[in-house]
Amino acid sequence: MRESRDVFHLAIPAFDLDTTVEFYVAGLGCKLARRYDDRVTLDFFGDQLVCHLSPAPVDETPMSDIPMYPRHFGVTFRYGADFDSLYQLCVQRKLPLYADVTTRFDGMVEVHRTFVLCDPSSNLLEFKHYADARMMY
Amino acid sequence: MRESRDVFHLAIPAFDLDTTVEFYVAGLGCKLARRYDDRVTLDFFGDQLVCHLSPAPVDETPMSDIPMYPRHFGVTFRYGADFDSLYQLCVQRKLPLYADVTTRFDGMVEVHRTFVLCDPSSNLLEFKHYADARMMY
Amino acid sequence: MRESRDVFHLAIPAFDLDTTVEFYVAGLGCKLARRYDDRVTLDFFGDQLVCHLSPAPVDETPMSDIPMYPRHFGVTFRYGADFDSLYQLCVQRKLPLYADVTTRFDGMVEVHRTFVLCDPSSNLLEFKHYADARMMY
Amino acid sequence: MRESRDVFHLAIPAFDLDTTVEFYVAGLGCKLARRYDDRVTLDFFGDQLVCHLSPAPVDETPMSDIPMYPRHFGVTFRYGADFDSLYQLCVQRKLPLYADVTTRFDGMVEVHRTFVLCDPSSNLLEFKHYADARMMY
Amino acid sequence: MRESRDVFHLAIPAFDLDTTVEFYVAGLGCKLARRYDDRVTLDFFGDQLVCHLSPAPVDETPMSDIPMYPRHFGVTFRYGADFDSLYQLCVQRKLPLYADVTTRFDGMVEVHRTFVLCDPSSNLLEFKHYADARMMY
Amino acid sequence: MRESRDVFHLAIPAFDLDTTVEFYVAGLGCKLARRYDDRVTLDFFGDQLVCHLSPAPVDETPMSDIPMYPRHFGVTFRYGADFDSLYQLCVQRKLPLYADVTTRFDGMVEVHRTFVLCDPSSNLLEFKHYADARMMY
Amino acid sequence: MRESRDVFHLAIPAFDLDTTVEFYVAGLGCKLARRYDDRVTLDFFGDQLVCHLSPAPVDETPMSDIPMYPRHFGVTFRYGADFDSLYQLCVQRKLPLYADVTTRFDGMVEVHRTFVLCDPSSNLLEFKHYADARMMY
Amino acid sequence: MRESRDVFHLAIPAFDLDTTVEFYVAGLGCKLARRYDDRVTLDFFGDQLVCHLSPAPVDETPMSDIPMYPRHFGVTFRYGADFDSLYQLCVQRKLPLYADVTTRFDGMVEVHRTFVLCDPSSNLLEFKHYADARMMY
Repeated sequence: MRESRDVFHLAIPAFDLDTTVEFYVAGLGCKLARRYDDRVTLDFFGDQLVCHLSPAPVDETPMSDIPMYPRHFGVTFRYGADFDSLYQLCVQRKLPLYADVTTRFDGMVEVHRTFVLCDPSSNLLEFKHYADARMMY
Repeated sequence: MRESRDVFHLAIPAFDLDTTVEFYVAGLGCKLARRYDDRVTLDFFGDQLVCHLSPAPVDETPMSDIPMYPRHFGVTFRYGADFDSLYQLCVQRKLPLYADVTTRFDGMVEVHRTFVLCDPSSNLLEFKHYADARMMY
Repeated sequence: MRESRDVFHLAIPAFDLDTTVEFYVAGLGCKLARRYDDRVTLDFFGDQLVCHLSPAPVDETPMSDIPMYPRHFGVTFRYGADFDSLYQLCVQRKLPLYADVTTRFDGMVEVHRTFVLCDPSSNLLEFKHYADARMMY
Repeated sequence: MRESRDVFHLAIPAFDLDTTVEFYVAGLGCKLARRYDDRVTLDFFGDQLVCHLSPAPVDETPMSDIPMYPRHFGVTFRYGADFDSLYQLCVQRKLPLYADVTTRFDGMVEVHRTFVLCDPSSNLLEFKHYADARMMY
Repeated sequence: MRESRDVFHLAIPAFDLDTTVEFYVAGLGCKLARRYDDRVTLDFFGDQLVCHLSPAPVDETPMSDIPMYPRHFGVTFRYGADFDSLYQLCVQRKLPLYADVTTRFDGMVEVHRTFVLCDPSSNLLEFKHYADARMMY
Repeated sequence: MRESRDVFHLAIPAFDLDTTVEFYVAGLGCKLARRYDDRVTLDFFGDQLVCHLSPAPVDETPMSDIPMYPRHFGVTFRYGADFDSLYQLCVQRKLPLYADVTTRFDGMVEVHRTFVLCDPSSNLLEFKHYADARMMY
Repeated sequence: MRESRDVFHLAIPAFDLDTTVEFYVAGLGCKLARRYDDRVTLDFFGDQLVCHLSPAPVDETPMSDIPMYPRHFGVTFRYGADFDSLYQLCVQRKLPLYADVTTRFDGMVEVHRTFVLCDPSSNLLEFKHYADARMMY
Repeated sequence: MRESRDVFHLAIPAFDLDTTVEFYVAGLGCKLARRYDDRVTLDFFGDQLVCHLSPAPVDETPMSDIPMYPRHFGVTFRYGADFDSLYQLCVQRKLPLYADVTTRFDGMVEVHRTFVLCDPSSNLLEFKHYADARMMY
């Protein structure tokens, strides 16, 4: 169990701040905490996400060519209902799915459902739910 | 305030798993949750850090050339004493400091102390403490 | 003690949404949850504030003529340090003070410190701290 | 998630204190914290509601003419069962319903049930329950 | 540690309901939850106190003749500051002190401060603070 | 909601300490905290119950003649399952039931189930569960 | 209810540290906190387990000859689902069962399910779930 | 951080149940939960300790010959004040100290204070407080 008093923070690149706010706030339902010229800070499911304005690559990478490993981030939900709610939100709001819901490690203790979003700056977000809560770490 | 039931998870590259465990567990005092051939999962201050085995770059980047932006991660502490304890641990155990403790935004509401570590795979870890807890996001 | 699972919500008029977001998010440090054409919703110290676009009165009321009673809202802090932090933020960011810090009911059990802000739509916000936490209600 | 240590407070007009106590305490099941000559303070679902004695308008406004926007307040429940219990209480105790239960934004992520009460001083109270708890803000 | 979800309830005699409400709500700062013809229910420091209308004895017992044992009730505070605040409230509001602050079991592990109030129906209320929190039971 | 840090305490008469411990610990499943020559202290569902050795009345009162009002005490459970578990324990261990489970205020908001035990010193213990948790006070 | 801030700690013998880590971390899903030459420390379901390197007995005791009493340790789960999850993990990962799931004290208040593991150093671990949570002590 | 809903349980030998209750309840201030012919169960700082009646060794081991490793158990306190309170209780009530307060690992991150008690059945109890709370595991 993690403590509620401290906050994880993650800094990632953002090619455009308006598009970033559109994706995370109007899309994913996160809250905008602060906006500066060169970055926005978000309350991302209770933790802090800082999106730093960064130059986009000259050639745009097609989503299917973005590698899942080693870099991605997201939330592992304790309850399956929270996973389901978020997935419905993503479908309804047509957020770009890098990978639809799949079940990994079926038949093993580590079994979990997962889906992956792609934000407008090619960052991958993975959301997970484990059948056995002790496997969240 | 974040909830304690869900867990943030972050996947990052690791050039070597033994060195990674040495840095995060024996060094930083995180807990090893699982070890596979291609990755280790850690309980990192209550959240999940997954270190995926990834090829190291051919030419090693000197620490001073690793860019702070846009990518880094870490913890923002609610209480200054927790920030101080962690800093003492890093000094005592001689963890590589990318940036020693500094105060940013002095004289402003957003004022906070920060220091930055560099893990053996060139990932930067920033730890922060804000004078005003409402600025943690 | 209130429960953390439910949320108080308050709907108030806003003469202009941009100014409202400027005051509450960039000024007071609240978080923007959602923005529609006719309203914005805010995470206001953990509760929900909905600012509905409403016609401004033809003649602007000078701040000193806005009545404190019967309508105003705000937060009563359990700890004095949180009251102090917020007051410093308001001073530093030059938020319009309708009433500076005063002590009310001095010498009585109900003694508390209070200050009052005025938002761009003439809504008054009062922040309080009671010496005796049982007097918060 | 809001913290339980701080309290939201809202001040509203009351045309008559006895009727106000009757509505909020004997009716809605709130708790009376303090009573003065010119106001009563209530523990309203864990937050503080202060009802200030104020002159009633010369001509009484029929309930149906009271505007819902921009001013109203209430509670957003995390669990549907709490919404249901409160609605049953209102029906059984014949509290004046300004608007019966309806579902708003059906088919969207923001879908929620809502009903609205009218207190004896023409203040409107809205109670809500969202299918997706992340939409509470 | 007790759980916060359940509530202790205690029923005691009250010779007169108005005087009872005056003592507990206006005096001791408890909250009035419900009032019936034959009883009032109070939120007494988070637990439920039910005061049942009962005939007063024909001959009034002088306060000094009311026995402390075996019947009395009250709250044991975890923090000394809460004990101090309540004592100040009792002194300022001139609530009838059956026994002023004393220290019992001095020099022993069970050492605690205590004072005793007498309500208008001759019920004794004891408030305590132990130096060692493990002695609260 | 009550806080978990403070403890309610109630002092009651006990005609015999061994019988008292037998009833409360071996019977009702409370925990014995301390035993002195003239009293025992119990962890009673998280609060403190102090049983003071007191002379039994010369003539024993038959249980059915003990008055329910104005004096009794007990616990109001938040969840019906806890009420059910305790009732089963009382039945199985044959604790003396002063009043078996009944439903009071049926059809009203205040509806609740209740049963009443009698301890060996003629103290009555009432356990309750309200359908609407807001009626616990 | 126990508090979450303090930690129970138990020191037990380990005949071999590698095997111990294999059993507790890769097997039982505990987290490795620290490893020294002569011991490993584990986060065992939130408490601390310290395994001290100790000489194995000359003659290995067959598992069936290890006595259950008086020494063993483990976790009593509040919710049956947690008991079930752990049992499935043990079965799937083929951890050595000293005693399969049985129900003890059937028909009594103390009824509970239990199973017992044997670690590589002949320590017995018992996991339990009581139908009535008050019987956990 | 451990969760408060589950309970650690430890079974240990007891040569005599009366002496055991005397040591743990009247001495150490634990609570007696249940007593059977062959064991007592205790609420030991929020966890469950079961003392099973076991034959004492023929030759009594002098306390100084009882080995500290590999078997002992106890509590690691989050706050130093709780460690201090317990030590004072042990001194005042003359509980047998196997090892008085010492500081271990001085000058290192793992620095902690510790003292060790010996119960009447030669079980050793260690209580600890770490300067850096992250070292509790």
